[in-house]
Amino acid sequence: MHNKVTRQNIQDIKDLLGHDIVIDSDISEDYSHDEMTIYGTRAPDLVITPKCTEDVSKLLKYANDHLLPVIARGAGTGLCGGCVAIEGGILVDMSHMDKILEIDKKTMTATFEPGVILMNAIEKVSEEGFLYAPDPGEKSATIGGNVMTNAGGMRAIKYGVTRDHIKGLEVVLADGSVITLGGKTSKNSSGYDLKDLIIGSEGTLAIVTKIIAKIIPKPKLMTSLLIPFSTLKDALDAVPYITNLEDVATTIEFMEKEVIEDARLYLGKDFPNKDYNAYLIVSYSGNNKNELERMINLCAELALEKGAIDVFISDTEERQASIWDARGAFLEAIKNSTTEMDECDVVVDIDKVADFNDFAKNVAGRENIRIRSFGHAGDGNLHIYILKDDMPDDIWQRKAKAFMDELYEEAAILKGQVSGEHGIGHAKKAYLKDSLDPAVIELMKKIKVAFDPHNILNPAKVIDIE
Amino acid sequence: MHNKVTRQNIQDIKDLLGHDIVIDSDISEDYSHDEMTIYGTRAPDLVITPKCTEDVSKLLKYANDHLLPVIARGAGTGLCGGCVAIEGGILVDMSHMDKILEIDKKTMTATFEPGVILMNAIEKVSEEGFLYAPDPGEKSATIGGNVMTNAGGMRAIKYGVTRDHIKGLEVVLADGSVITLGGKTSKNSSGYDLKDLIIGSEGTLAIVTKIIAKIIPKPKLMTSLLIPFSTLKDALDAVPYITNLEDVATTIEFMEKEVIEDARLYLGKDFPNKDYNAYLIVSYSGNNKNELERMINLCAELALEKGAIDVFISDTEERQASIWDARGAFLEAIKNSTTEMDECDVVVDIDKVADFNDFAKNVAGRENIRIRSFGHAGDGNLHIYILKDDMPDDIWQRKAKAFMDELYEEAAILKGQVSGEHGIGHAKKAYLKDSLDPAVIELMKKIKVAFDPHNILNPAKVIDIE
Repeated sequence: MHNKVTRQNIQDIKDLLGHDIVIDSDISEDYSHDEMTIYGTRAPDLVITPKCTEDVSKLLKYANDHLLPVIARGAGTGLCGGCVAIEGGILVDMSHMDKILEIDKKTMTATFEPGVILMNAIEKVSEEGFLYAPDPGEKSATIGGNVMTNAGGMRAIKYGVTRDHIKGLEVVLADGSVITLGGKTSKNSSGYDLKDLIIGSEGTLAIVTKIIAKIIPKPKLMTSLLIPFSTLKDALDAVPYITNLEDVATTIEFMEKEVIEDARLYLGKDFPNKDYNAYLIVSYSGNNKNELERMINLCAELALEKGAIDVFISDTEERQASIWDARGAFLEAIKNSTTEMDECDVVVDIDKVADFNDFAKNVAGRENIRIRSFGHAGDGNLHIYILKDDMPDDIWQRKAKAFMDELYEEAAILKGQVSGEHGIGHAKKAYLKDSLDPAVIELMKKIKVAFDPHNILNPAKVIDIE
Repeated sequence: MHNKVTRQNIQDIKDLLGHDIVIDSDISEDYSHDEMTIYGTRAPDLVITPKCTEDVSKLLKYANDHLLPVIARGAGTGLCGGCVAIEGGILVDMSHMDKILEIDKKTMTATFEPGVILMNAIEKVSEEGFLYAPDPGEKSATIGGNVMTNAGGMRAIKYGVTRDHIKGLEVVLADGSVITLGGKTSKNSSGYDLKDLIIGSEGTLAIVTKIIAKIIPKPKLMTSLLIPFSTLKDALDAVPYITNLEDVATTIEFMEKEVIEDARLYLGKDFPNKDYNAYLIVSYSGNNKNELERMINLCAELALEKGAIDVFISDTEERQASIWDARGAFLEAIKNSTTEMDECDVVVDIDKVADFNDFAKNVAGRENIRIRSFGHAGDGNLHIYILKDDMPDDIWQRKAKAFMDELYEEAAILKGQVSGEHGIGHAKKAYLKDSLDPAVIELMKKIKVAFDPHNILNPAKVIDIE
């Protein structure tokens, strides 16, 4: 139903926005995929690099009038093909709108343009003595991308996900209108919550042009525990006891021997310990050394009581870096260890993570597929990677699909969700549809139509409109 | 456009649901208003007291087929007429669906039916060693009512509002379909966030029948500081410094001498101190006595440095009760001190609370109106009450409207929100409309139509559909 981008469109858009922000030839191959190359299908017809909200507004008005698809893109670190122009059209590269507009200590908010890189946001906020608490693993993602996928990260157990830290948004609607939702206040009971509807909508309802985020006083101290177990099941069984301790851990991550070995090979650096099959990393943060030590001891004692083999305490920056650098490299390390891969990002109740992981391993074993997994034990979000290695293309495609089908079916049985934090894009659309009640899908379609009647915003992502 | 409830409808509904849950005569006067009697307009035609989701589902299907308005009601503690059948129809009294279905320590969730009274929810969760963190002042409200208004409360600065603690909902749609949104997991990036759209929608999009809430380990210790200042402005100016301290306060409330006197008269109990014009109450909670003392001292020193006259530390349960009992009684005490009242519940940036409160006082002074105010200094949410006393009806109505008009106009200038936590109901509908961009109102209307095409759910609340 969309129109194709014509030469006339390109000329019009150049006239409208200025030639300097329009790319219509030698379009970089990067724009045709995200981090998960298998979900890259084709290059966009045109790329725009807006510098301000008005650029986005003018473009959308034009595209809406001419029925041209518009796909917003941050840093392209997504994992579900969410920013790929699968039906062609205009890709809007938001990475040039990358100003940190304000850090307001009184209201404890930071105002970002969407193209701000997460690691820059964290650093700048930190310099002012504050913490932007969400901690998605991919630090080179943009804040805008984080908002669009409702990125989760490693601190969800204590602080929540991106959604929980976004107080206000400026967005451009499909017809080019610019609206503000929320603001700097912590409370708001003034009509329907459109802000949270936009968060996690993957560019299908609007394009975000300004983000007001909550920041909190930065804890001065952090200590991490590396806790080995004989089996992953032992490790995961201990988690609900750790979460019940009187102070909430900042992070509880799980991993197995194989993925640590992948990270060692990738980084060329040893992990502090590699003798055991499975590990938890548990972190606590605070401002008082004695209090932090007390918590660490409580956690260590409990872990040993629940089957841990040992507890390694990392209370220096250097020791913590050796753990977290490895943890941060898992995705790249796994990617580097194979020819191609696909990923499953389900979330289940935290007492069902072990069952789900066992299920995945059994299927992989039965089908003779190599997989890797790691994830957020504290919030039930697993990342399971199926690896192509030297499998022929046709067998890989068949096996990958069959494997994913079984995983998402099992997730549904366990009442899990299709995506914990990476979103749906076009890669997981069929699984989302299967997992939700048809009445829910119908409501989502109606909401899409309400926001974007001509279906120009990132068409064929998240849900399909007939 | 709705039909009137006929005798035939009543008979049909009795046959459908059983006579025991249908009230069609001697309908209690209570059902014709909420806590703010001025927004009560008329009694419903029929009252249903469902016992289970299926009752609600059957009723909605019938009402949708016959175009009958359906208004859900919790404990009737709202302040904006949200549960009043202003266009007639069927009132659904959810207070009999009041079971605490589960407290699940592993996933740290509590599952409630919507009619559970907040104080019962808090108590039951507490008995298991956990905290349901939102702390709306009105403890006899239902959890369902809290969800429907996105109730805020006194701990928003540290823990957030009701929205931040709701992980999953079971809701019945206008056509009677029963859907589940979210679940027990902390993460979810699986399609549009319908759960948060329902939260705060005041019964206009769906009726909630089950609520999965987040619970956290309960802090063992709490200490409150009562901090007097010469003026309210001095008190409020100190707040952004207190919020920037390294540990986040659980609560920062403000109040003035007059409202404390109202509470003393109402409760017949003295407040710990009444010598000064304005006070902050600041609370900290934790698990380590030394750490808590350190924070209390940091806060006390800072407050004195920023102009506090004194600092009274309440570290026993008894002393804290004398403060919090008074604080909890403000609304009732004010109501009790006059003949009739109206309320403004705006939220502004926390560094603008003093300006807003001054503005309200100036208008009241100029117009010779008695007002009272108190509120949540830590999150910028003020509660300003205009009191009728012995004013003649016509003058009261004119003055109350003019006063509110000025207040909401000023709130808009300060980029505040119409409601911080009490919602819109029908009382604040015009102010909501004025405060939002027409494009936002249009989207809200479309969402309402998407969920409730025949406009049977709490019609003429929040926004008007033409």
